[in-house]
Amino acid sequence: MDIDKYVARRAEAINTALPGLINGLKGAHPRLAEAMKYSLCAGGKRLRPVLMGAAYEIFGGSAPDILPAACALEMVHTYSLVHDDLPAMDDDDLRRGRPTSHRVYGEAAAILAGDALLTDAFTVLLNSKYPRRVKSAGVLRAGAVLAGRAGARGMVSGQAADLEAEGFLRGPRLTPARKRAGARLLSYIHLHKTADLITAALEMGAALGGAAERDFSALSEFGREMGLCFQAADDILDVVGDKKKLGKSGSDARNHKLTCVSLLGLAGARAKAERLMQSALSRLGQVRGAAGPKAALAGIAEFVYRREK
Amino acid sequence: MDIDKYVARRAEAINTALPGLINGLKGAHPRLAEAMKYSLCAGGKRLRPVLMGAAYEIFGGSAPDILPAACALEMVHTYSLVHDDLPAMDDDDLRRGRPTSHRVYGEAAAILAGDALLTDAFTVLLNSKYPRRVKSAGVLRAGAVLAGRAGARGMVSGQAADLEAEGFLRGPRLTPARKRAGARLLSYIHLHKTADLITAALEMGAALGGAAERDFSALSEFGREMGLCFQAADDILDVVGDKKKLGKSGSDARNHKLTCVSLLGLAGARAKAERLMQSALSRLGQVRGAAGPKAALAGIAEFVYRREK
Repeated sequence: MDIDKYVARRAEAINTALPGLINGLKGAHPRLAEAMKYSLCAGGKRLRPVLMGAAYEIFGGSAPDILPAACALEMVHTYSLVHDDLPAMDDDDLRRGRPTSHRVYGEAAAILAGDALLTDAFTVLLNSKYPRRVKSAGVLRAGAVLAGRAGARGMVSGQAADLEAEGFLRGPRLTPARKRAGARLLSYIHLHKTADLITAALEMGAALGGAAERDFSALSEFGREMGLCFQAADDILDVVGDKKKLGKSGSDARNHKLTCVSLLGLAGARAKAERLMQSALSRLGQVRGAAGPKAALAGIAEFVYRREK
Repeated sequence: MDIDKYVARRAEAINTALPGLINGLKGAHPRLAEAMKYSLCAGGKRLRPVLMGAAYEIFGGSAPDILPAACALEMVHTYSLVHDDLPAMDDDDLRRGRPTSHRVYGEAAAILAGDALLTDAFTVLLNSKYPRRVKSAGVLRAGAVLAGRAGARGMVSGQAADLEAEGFLRGPRLTPARKRAGARLLSYIHLHKTADLITAALEMGAALGGAAERDFSALSEFGREMGLCFQAADDILDVVGDKKKLGKSGSDARNHKLTCVSLLGLAGARAKAERLMQSALSRLGQVRGAAGPKAALAGIAEFVYRREK
């Protein structure tokens, strides 16, 4: 399986669907809708919706069945980027190689565009028609997963902890005790800021596919480990990556941020990413269901890991 | 029926339930949870959840059945206040007589607290247990209503238009044409910024109660007219109310805001509120179902109207 092509083809289906979702929000304030579309249609790997589609297919369906749910997750991911970039947060000027939302539309409009992307993710998820094989109970559970993983038990707390950690390395010398405290804080941040939404992709796919509890749990753990691997790879990329290709400004070191690399060194961070990827694959092996989509998920896990190379 | 006592008693049930919802978000970042609770448990009339309970009871259930849904709506309302007060928005220092969230916790934390209140409203709505008479389809529809009314087709666009309208009266002299444009803009703002979430209260109650389409629609229109009446009364209060009692700083005139009063004068605004209240009551008369809860809704409409006296 050529996983790069697989991801690109699946992402294309998401990219095609997204603008129509915003256009479908009839009566929306025109500038607000424009700001929503600016961030939502700025490209990106569409990793989370692609993962959701593959997870769903393990249980016999076909990814287009759940296209609205996949787009809803991407809307939540996009809102989180728009708000993270705000002046009061990370104060970033560039995202995916383009000026950030608040640089283009102003701070108030960027806050509102994020709010609307988050809210209308639930409109898209809960108010769409699905084929009969997708049950109401599955949609309800997918909604509960999305809200749970994105909310105060999940992603938002990750961002709150990330702000708290800002400047951690500027503090007193890194004694062993401070290093352990830093490692704990970093785990919390990575788990919630990054892994929770990737976990949501797998769990939503499983919920919509009507997975048994045992398979739901194994996919959930696969998502968590892959999400942590993704973040480790991201931290490494911030140091070694080609800034231009990555399209963001490598601000971690500048901001004295707590990252896998600042805490473990480059070799340590690479070993951690490798360990997480292997562990993710072993969780995936426990899931029962169609082999093709499982192979795709394994390929994506390796694709995520490979990013740091 | 003593409507003041009715509203107070019903609001008490909401006030009792709300802190537990935030405490139930296990693993949330402590300062984030504190900021969420600070705004959510600051009092207020709890008008929207009380309306939802009464609407639900028209169709035979009892308001406590849907307590999580009622709290979810209050969480969305609270998030909207937290974000509206931000420095980039209305930049308000006081809300319900206390310093606003960003004055206490800082701008970043206030943005995140709003994000989490909005997201976890859906956790609470979609992930709670309801008695058997509340069907999954009703919960799904209530979720779609909440997201639709709060999102880009609703409340967020109202706030976007409100920011656009800021300083409208500072512009050139109010010619008849500018006055008409102002009236159109004001209708859009009031419809979306205020009436949509009050309409959501009625629609969610009807959806959870399993109302027939005809009754759902009549309740929806009742909500819209009452919501517009509520906003007209609010505009009047901003001019004539006891600032201390109201607990906010009467910033409309200071900000040259477009309001019913600035556009129609005090007498015109009062006539408009009266007209809307009567029209709301006539919609309510079309709803079939239990008389007690309908009388309560009529009482609340009058209660809302009376606020301006």
